[in-house]
Amino acid sequence: MADLPQHVDIHEEGPREGFQIEPGPIPSTEKIALVEALAETGLRHIQVCSFVNPRLVPGWADAEAVAGGFRPKPGVHYTGLWFNESGLRRALAFRERLTVTGSISLSASDAFSRKNLNRGHAENLEAMRKQTAAHLEAGVPVTRLGIMAAFGCNYQGDITPAQVVQTVADGLAIAGEAGVAITDLSLADTMGWATPIRIERGIGAVRERWPDLRIGLHLHDTRGLAVANAHAGLRLGVTKFDSTVGGLGGCPFAGQKGAAGNICTEELALLCEEMGIATGIDLDALIEVGRLAERIVGHQLPSELIRAGSLAAFRRRVAA
Amino acid sequence: MADLPQHVDIHEEGPREGFQIEPGPIPSTEKIALVEALAETGLRHIQVCSFVNPRLVPGWADAEAVAGGFRPKPGVHYTGLWFNESGLRRALAFRERLTVTGSISLSASDAFSRKNLNRGHAENLEAMRKQTAAHLEAGVPVTRLGIMAAFGCNYQGDITPAQVVQTVADGLAIAGEAGVAITDLSLADTMGWATPIRIERGIGAVRERWPDLRIGLHLHDTRGLAVANAHAGLRLGVTKFDSTVGGLGGCPFAGQKGAAGNICTEELALLCEEMGIATGIDLDALIEVGRLAERIVGHQLPSELIRAGSLAAFRRRVAA
Repeated sequence: MADLPQHVDIHEEGPREGFQIEPGPIPSTEKIALVEALAETGLRHIQVCSFVNPRLVPGWADAEAVAGGFRPKPGVHYTGLWFNESGLRRALAFRERLTVTGSISLSASDAFSRKNLNRGHAENLEAMRKQTAAHLEAGVPVTRLGIMAAFGCNYQGDITPAQVVQTVADGLAIAGEAGVAITDLSLADTMGWATPIRIERGIGAVRERWPDLRIGLHLHDTRGLAVANAHAGLRLGVTKFDSTVGGLGGCPFAGQKGAAGNICTEELALLCEEMGIATGIDLDALIEVGRLAERIVGHQLPSELIRAGSLAAFRRRVAA
Repeated sequence: MADLPQHVDIHEEGPREGFQIEPGPIPSTEKIALVEALAETGLRHIQVCSFVNPRLVPGWADAEAVAGGFRPKPGVHYTGLWFNESGLRRALAFRERLTVTGSISLSASDAFSRKNLNRGHAENLEAMRKQTAAHLEAGVPVTRLGIMAAFGCNYQGDITPAQVVQTVADGLAIAGEAGVAITDLSLADTMGWATPIRIERGIGAVRERWPDLRIGLHLHDTRGLAVANAHAGLRLGVTKFDSTVGGLGGCPFAGQKGAAGNICTEELALLCEEMGIATGIDLDALIEVGRLAERIVGHQLPSELIRAGSLAAFRRRVAA
């Protein structure tokens, strides 16, 4: 048996990922209700909105209403997402409520970078240099490096560990030039290509070169392997995961209409808690929030656990 | 990295598990169409029907029509399920078409045995002694021992490895009395209580005592952990799995209405094939059969992969 971590940090991205992809207009009040309910489950990190161009992502046209509307709970870190200086400025308007930190975001797949950002890897490096400078100028710390498509890509195919290592090196070089220290590396399985063996190899290659970087995983359940991939990460000592309640999210990429979204927070929390890894989450409360998320979006979400119920609930029933 | 097996056997139970739980009457011709389509995917073991009391399981009132109606493909083993002598006699009528072998079936949970079979463990042992004798009298070999609720139970709670070992010992004793040799042990996570760590501990305890028994896993995806549990099994050298195309099945047990069914065959096959473990399955063909299964039952099935498509399909697209 591997040495599993004693504790993991789960970053809940359900509101941001979920509401950006839902077709129907969802009232800001319901988005706020979900954010506030999540904060009552023991989650400590919640991404509440995306400061993106409302013409591109109509589901987040009300980012300001949500970021300014929820009642913050002490001890919970709320975050937003942005991709450019305009988004950064919008986020900074909520600096009292949101934890505003900067990321260097790269893709291990040049083809994905071109499709998703409309610029190749070299141009993206230049854009990230500028964005890092803009963050620092605004007094926003830059401590995180995110690598998209780290395990495979619909537009490029398989991604090798060497490609991931090179992309991480490129990102760390940008940080070095800017004089900032990256402490957190996030490897994202953006299009659901990861398998446990690819997780092991990708993380292994990065660890070998940078043993002190804290590695997090951003997993999608596109092909049903997300929980197995999370388990592979836990075995390697990964202690930070992004996830979405109910499995909110869905997949916007080529050929995968209707495919699943991110790994479900409640299934990830069940996996951890049942193996003795603390999450700080009240799983039964979180399952109720998953059911609330289903009511808000008005259709079934991928989470199996919100239908089955926790094991703790059955243990209480047996004991009664 | 663990030593993964080079090859696994997948026993497809979709027709039997799926059609027993669907509410609507499904024409025998469509059940036969699914069985015949499955046989074209490279699957070598397909459970086609259940010889159960049609008053208890109306979905299998047409077991004879299906067992006698499909066109067998050479090299594929077709099986049926039965729980008593009446069922055995019905199966024997199809001995030319079905592989008829007997099992000793026990539950690691006494409470589940009482709820599911209406008899406790001791009575069940007696019933299995009689059933084994009946099998042998009919010339049916008994080589398999199945343990239900091997990782936990809705009615009893957690099940310890020691309880599993004791139940296996009880089953092997019945075999020993009857003078038959059990070669295959199936551990079933009947109600979705397994986690990777419980799989490791349960299999570890059984292996330690009976190192030569071939261990198979029958997994349910009740709480989204089935693929992670399968991966834990593969790491321990498990080479036999039951599964259902599309995740057909659902859960009939207390408090879990609407919960997921068995582990999806196509997600299990993807996990194996992408990690270099041969299944003999043409995954793209199997995904098409999963979509056929959805059309037959008339509602969405749990499989994520039938919406996302295989990685091989994307690799071909990239290469084109």
